[in-house]
Amino acid sequence: MLAKNIERKILRTICPDAKGLIAKITNICYKHELNIVQNNEFVDHRTGRFFMRTELEGIFNDATLLADLDGALPSGSLRELHAAGRRRIVIMVTREAHCLGDLLMKSAFGGLDVEIAAVIGNHNTLQSLVERFDIPFIHVSHDGLTREAHDTQMADCIDQYQPDYVVLAKYMRVLTPGFVKRFPNQIINIHHSFLPAFIGARPYHQAYERGVKLIGATAHYVNDNLDEGPIIMQDVINIDHSYSAEEMIRAGRDVEKNVLSRAVDKVLAQRVFVYGNRTIIL
Amino acid sequence: MLAKNIERKILRTICPDAKGLIAKITNICYKHELNIVQNNEFVDHRTGRFFMRTELEGIFNDATLLADLDGALPSGSLRELHAAGRRRIVIMVTREAHCLGDLLMKSAFGGLDVEIAAVIGNHNTLQSLVERFDIPFIHVSHDGLTREAHDTQMADCIDQYQPDYVVLAKYMRVLTPGFVKRFPNQIINIHHSFLPAFIGARPYHQAYERGVKLIGATAHYVNDNLDEGPIIMQDVINIDHSYSAEEMIRAGRDVEKNVLSRAVDKVLAQRVFVYGNRTIIL
Amino acid sequence: MLAKNIERKILRTICPDAKGLIAKITNICYKHELNIVQNNEFVDHRTGRFFMRTELEGIFNDATLLADLDGALPSGSLRELHAAGRRRIVIMVTREAHCLGDLLMKSAFGGLDVEIAAVIGNHNTLQSLVERFDIPFIHVSHDGLTREAHDTQMADCIDQYQPDYVVLAKYMRVLTPGFVKRFPNQIINIHHSFLPAFIGARPYHQAYERGVKLIGATAHYVNDNLDEGPIIMQDVINIDHSYSAEEMIRAGRDVEKNVLSRAVDKVLAQRVFVYGNRTIIL
Amino acid sequence: MLAKNIERKILRTICPDAKGLIAKITNICYKHELNIVQNNEFVDHRTGRFFMRTELEGIFNDATLLADLDGALPSGSLRELHAAGRRRIVIMVTREAHCLGDLLMKSAFGGLDVEIAAVIGNHNTLQSLVERFDIPFIHVSHDGLTREAHDTQMADCIDQYQPDYVVLAKYMRVLTPGFVKRFPNQIINIHHSFLPAFIGARPYHQAYERGVKLIGATAHYVNDNLDEGPIIMQDVINIDHSYSAEEMIRAGRDVEKNVLSRAVDKVLAQRVFVYGNRTIIL
Repeated sequence: MLAKNIERKILRTICPDAKGLIAKITNICYKHELNIVQNNEFVDHRTGRFFMRTELEGIFNDATLLADLDGALPSGSLRELHAAGRRRIVIMVTREAHCLGDLLMKSAFGGLDVEIAAVIGNHNTLQSLVERFDIPFIHVSHDGLTREAHDTQMADCIDQYQPDYVVLAKYMRVLTPGFVKRFPNQIINIHHSFLPAFIGARPYHQAYERGVKLIGATAHYVNDNLDEGPIIMQDVINIDHSYSAEEMIRAGRDVEKNVLSRAVDKVLAQRVFVYGNRTIIL
Repeated sequence: MLAKNIERKILRTICPDAKGLIAKITNICYKHELNIVQNNEFVDHRTGRFFMRTELEGIFNDATLLADLDGALPSGSLRELHAAGRRRIVIMVTREAHCLGDLLMKSAFGGLDVEIAAVIGNHNTLQSLVERFDIPFIHVSHDGLTREAHDTQMADCIDQYQPDYVVLAKYMRVLTPGFVKRFPNQIINIHHSFLPAFIGARPYHQAYERGVKLIGATAHYVNDNLDEGPIIMQDVINIDHSYSAEEMIRAGRDVEKNVLSRAVDKVLAQRVFVYGNRTIIL
Repeated sequence: MLAKNIERKILRTICPDAKGLIAKITNICYKHELNIVQNNEFVDHRTGRFFMRTELEGIFNDATLLADLDGALPSGSLRELHAAGRRRIVIMVTREAHCLGDLLMKSAFGGLDVEIAAVIGNHNTLQSLVERFDIPFIHVSHDGLTREAHDTQMADCIDQYQPDYVVLAKYMRVLTPGFVKRFPNQIINIHHSFLPAFIGARPYHQAYERGVKLIGATAHYVNDNLDEGPIIMQDVINIDHSYSAEEMIRAGRDVEKNVLSRAVDKVLAQRVFVYGNRTIIL
Repeated sequence: MLAKNIERKILRTICPDAKGLIAKITNICYKHELNIVQNNEFVDHRTGRFFMRTELEGIFNDATLLADLDGALPSGSLRELHAAGRRRIVIMVTREAHCLGDLLMKSAFGGLDVEIAAVIGNHNTLQSLVERFDIPFIHVSHDGLTREAHDTQMADCIDQYQPDYVVLAKYMRVLTPGFVKRFPNQIINIHHSFLPAFIGARPYHQAYERGVKLIGATAHYVNDNLDEGPIIMQDVINIDHSYSAEEMIRAGRDVEKNVLSRAVDKVLAQRVFVYGNRTIIL
């Protein structure tokens, strides 16, 4: 009957680099009789930071495990213990369906271990699509509202669902600092260019004007500077002179949805560490 | 009011290579006062074949245009004139949702200029998904039927919808020669490997056993030899030692659906020419 | 003995789009009994420009062929007739060997149909490498010279070799407008980023700071604005958090040399048309 | 003066998976006051094998370190301690220059931390190229020799240079089992297809016949079955209907040389573990 208590958890550690860190952490896991299913670490020799993601299996006593770690790790260390398994997101959209559709399909039919708690749109274009998947769609129109008021309404709405992450699946308005502050390192956006090229509005039109030979997409955490948050995932496809901006938009959709979905997958699996303006993916 | 008669059509020509072919064809178009919106041609110097796809705009007199072409082209020439625009497909599926879902999304929200007339499944797993998009799902179970009887039922069912193409979106049974013969060069399949590697069943498991560092997908026309029809589109993604066969299956889904959807797009636009066991895409 | 006069030439046409252009041009070729080995055309519907590259084989009377074309094409048309075959380049370098080495290898052992007339370096680091391939290396030091004086020395030196193109194989100084003006649309540069991201100096360090997940290279024509000339070719590779700027530099070398060499190949084959700040590659 | 004894070494461990392995190994390193510069591990849950690569810095007492490890690791464990730094290879070639040229350039100008001790050719085509880089070229002709006799001559020749690895840079003959046995897991080959597609001779011609839309290259260890050894690295490029087999050969060269050079880089850095017919790259 003991097997009933066996759980899988993910330990994430960020601390100043020092000799013996892996030994110390894995010793503690060993003493707790936890099996290391998967372990990945990275030392950033430039900033002297150590990052480690440890997937553990066994019977957990969270309090003593964390206390043991606190006793062993240098000061200034961060450690988090997460249950493995399905996370919960709220998706924000405007009018484009492709990223949303991909997330809905993967949530319903496999591919992403995620519960989509709700979808919020500043337009109601996608309501019917969302409801076909038995997921609540909330229309929070920005009509007649200040940005701040609109963002507050949306944030309040999100809070009701207590999601782990907020995914912007082609939400086409700039979010206010107030909104961003309420979900620190929890908002994931897809931008339709290979950042830092073509920041801001109409990147495919910018790409057309510049005559580039590849177009791309970037999934990133949202912070206060538009399109400047830590990058999680990027990909590109080749194009040629025959593509108009409209054809780029059409071709770009597959890259956008693939990049967003792969980024969300890594984030959900607690593989992404943010440090400064960079991500470490373990 | 003349503008009402202005149409766009696609002229496709395959003929033995000869001096002056482009001049002859484009002269005839010019005499008919048709504007060439886009023209692509290819000479296969190895087989001495000339291929041309001409997108025309104007007021068409199909009969005289084709007669003029027949008078000018060498014997043994093929020419087809297709109206531009939306085509009609029937999709066949088994139990996997990802390729189907992508086609449904693109048909409903843009990305593919296609009418999905119906979806036929040998299982009914995907019925609910299809019906959410207001498209008929027909369950043609293979239980208790010979392959021939089952395929005949499905072919009869397809015939009711008079599709331009039949798309196998992870239909997981081998089709009989009788079925294939009823839809010559009209059946497009997605195989979950970079053919000719891993022909047949369980390609990801084969890929795992072989220890490859990339996995892929191949869209091809179906002919009588399993996985040996003319290839339309292929793509791969990188994997590494950490992927189990199951993780390859999961990662491969995005490649499969992207490759199938891009292949279908080219076929619908009348860009794909089959010659022998090869495709020319113009 | 007539076969001795059979030549292959490339006709390049740029003109305002109009009905019947392909018919007119190919008719003239047909009347001249020239065989079209390969033909590619593109209509830019946005600017109303028509581009065509026609590879012809036969006995040429250049003067009457061009006169016939001038009679048939709309005013404002450009047409050029180039002999097919090997072109002549001068390469400019600073201290990095990888792009130069790739061009030397391909020139000597196949892969590029090119004669490297000379290599000019503002440092002499690469002299020994160049001379191993029996190609003259000219060291034009910038020490004690103004930019203008240095560029004039180099341009005078290049003029002695009468090259078709000047290839900057990691030449790390900005060229003066005076230099650029002497070789209009003849200078090809490789920039070590996927432009327009990371214009200017130290792009890999910029890429490191931004935390991108892919790095790339861009081959482009040089005009007066640094890194803003028409793009010919671009490619990227995936990187991750473990790459320092130095490791990006090392990994980026293969992309840089591949992109440059593929761009040079297209340019030499007269496949690249410049129009405004864009390239059409036929 | 102590700093003079500070070295960097790489510890490689393969053993049956068990609880506490990372703790045990890193504890021993910690007790030896060795700093872990980089650590990567992988558990193959299917075969129950644990793989770990640990890059260590400090003052080494090899004998006690290895003895301590032997005392701590389960029976059936393998552990190796390698000095970090430059390795030594012998390259075997036939007539094609591109892979060889890339290795010569990277050895001479940076990009690969390798000493090329000698190049052996069964033809002397590439002698001049090799000697330009001040590296001995040995021509071991197969004329009039049995395969066994020829391979013995070459193996004897290789032995004189005591290389860490033998790199087949387009060596176009099948090696005998006797040869392979003399360099177990030390021979790296580049095959010009994305294996397992197109095993054996003339893969580009096979690819042409099959009408594939991508071509590739595979770097792998050589074992007794032709083109069936453990795969280290693979990559592909897109092609289309316009490529003849000869044009595939030409386009494929860049992929071949890139794949081979990246594979050699990983092998030299002691990152590649062979287990069964698979590689784990840490």
